[in-house]
Amino acid sequence: MDHQVTVQQPIIRFVDDEPREMNDEVAIEYPLTVVVDGEEFATMVCTPTYIEELVIGFLASEGLIRSSDEILSLTLDEPRGFAYVELKYKQSVSKDFHSKRFIGSCCGKSRQFYLQNDARTARTVLSRNTITPDQCFSLVNQMQNSSRDFQVTGGVHNAALCTSEGMVIFRTDIGRHNALDKIFGYMIQNRISPADKVIVFSGRISSEVLLKVAKMGVGIILSKSAPTSLALELAKDLEITAIGFVRNSSMNVYTHPQRLVTYSVR
Amino acid sequence: MDHQVTVQQPIIRFVDDEPREMNDEVAIEYPLTVVVDGEEFATMVCTPTYIEELVIGFLASEGLIRSSDEILSLTLDEPRGFAYVELKYKQSVSKDFHSKRFIGSCCGKSRQFYLQNDARTARTVLSRNTITPDQCFSLVNQMQNSSRDFQVTGGVHNAALCTSEGMVIFRTDIGRHNALDKIFGYMIQNRISPADKVIVFSGRISSEVLLKVAKMGVGIILSKSAPTSLALELAKDLEITAIGFVRNSSMNVYTHPQRLVTYSVR
Repeated sequence: MDHQVTVQQPIIRFVDDEPREMNDEVAIEYPLTVVVDGEEFATMVCTPTYIEELVIGFLASEGLIRSSDEILSLTLDEPRGFAYVELKYKQSVSKDFHSKRFIGSCCGKSRQFYLQNDARTARTVLSRNTITPDQCFSLVNQMQNSSRDFQVTGGVHNAALCTSEGMVIFRTDIGRHNALDKIFGYMIQNRISPADKVIVFSGRISSEVLLKVAKMGVGIILSKSAPTSLALELAKDLEITAIGFVRNSSMNVYTHPQRLVTYSVR
Repeated sequence: MDHQVTVQQPIIRFVDDEPREMNDEVAIEYPLTVVVDGEEFATMVCTPTYIEELVIGFLASEGLIRSSDEILSLTLDEPRGFAYVELKYKQSVSKDFHSKRFIGSCCGKSRQFYLQNDARTARTVLSRNTITPDQCFSLVNQMQNSSRDFQVTGGVHNAALCTSEGMVIFRTDIGRHNALDKIFGYMIQNRISPADKVIVFSGRISSEVLLKVAKMGVGIILSKSAPTSLALELAKDLEITAIGFVRNSSMNVYTHPQRLVTYSVR
């Protein structure tokens, strides 16, 4: 199986009333079912690249593992779209695990939203990493230059793991969360420290995106797009610097501006 | 509880190196847990408008109901974000119901992807509705004009239920599927026939979006954005006309062009 992001697709293109038959590139959507210790855990649709990283990042996001040595084996059946995982520490992956809402007795503000697995894994981010506005503009530019596939198909999300100085890796996926899980999987496989890292993301900063960044332990997220109110509450609580609408040379800093080194109120 | 789409949020806006404190509007993300016959079925995050329609549409999408008289009661606890539903026909909403991948013995092509609940509810769409390219351009324009909220926050998806002649209702949500579920819920509550309808959507046509349109029984979907390969396989199988990249006066017809009345190959 080759790992393509897009396929050719015959289309009829209309300009005004004029039809013309031609070929277009369309993003591949690949169903992947993750089976953990013999139990079907989840089915996702994804772009079939970096599948192993995706599975590892997904398991870490869901709170099933913390490091790659907790995975005894990972076998991919790519033609059928199955990933079989055997974990060191057996746990039930029943419905209770990943869908019940977690409501602590002391829950104020955003904390009441956490799902059970989020409560296990999201943690306050203590990173003291800093960044300048110019570095923010430059990182978002670098990610966009890497996103040839986005320009071709208009249908994928991009994420990049960066330091303040530059991009480390770039991942793309039709699923917004998958692009981040591929990065998380890479970090876990290669024991990458999150302390000096920045996540750059093409999509909206939703609560789920924010929680993933918290689980990675990364202190700064940059996006071309908007955040949501719940994501910002979580960012405040979890001490993540959320920066949105990074476009050319302007951007909005929503939370924890102390990581922006040129910040000073005039 | 008022039903707002956005809230005011203090931000620090940088233009180049210059910070300025100001207020911005941010999309609200509201966690909603749906409890069916006493059992927690799912937690979604949504824009808190048309919550009842959202719940009804979601239940129909998941294959739990076909018509609104199958709902004995629906009670919203809006401050806590819970919807309690009592169904006429009791069924287990255990993990098995909504996550197992369905692989029929005869599965060819896209059919193998269907999840168990999709297999119950998605069906070939027999609608003989037709549309002209000009009507397509006009409907997408109408939807965009209705999306003030999108322009303000940059963070919501829009969906509209239309006939070929014009828009019937418009719904917005931070979740792409929720915007469509609100429309589905409206159709079920008001016994709207899908036969002459068109769905106009701001987001990508993914397999999940396509399956939702099939479940509604609508034969034409228009989007400003791109489709995925799996969505197009499903569109072919389920006889849905998928039209993407509708922008100003051009568009791409991917499947079943027979519903386009001016269609003729030169």
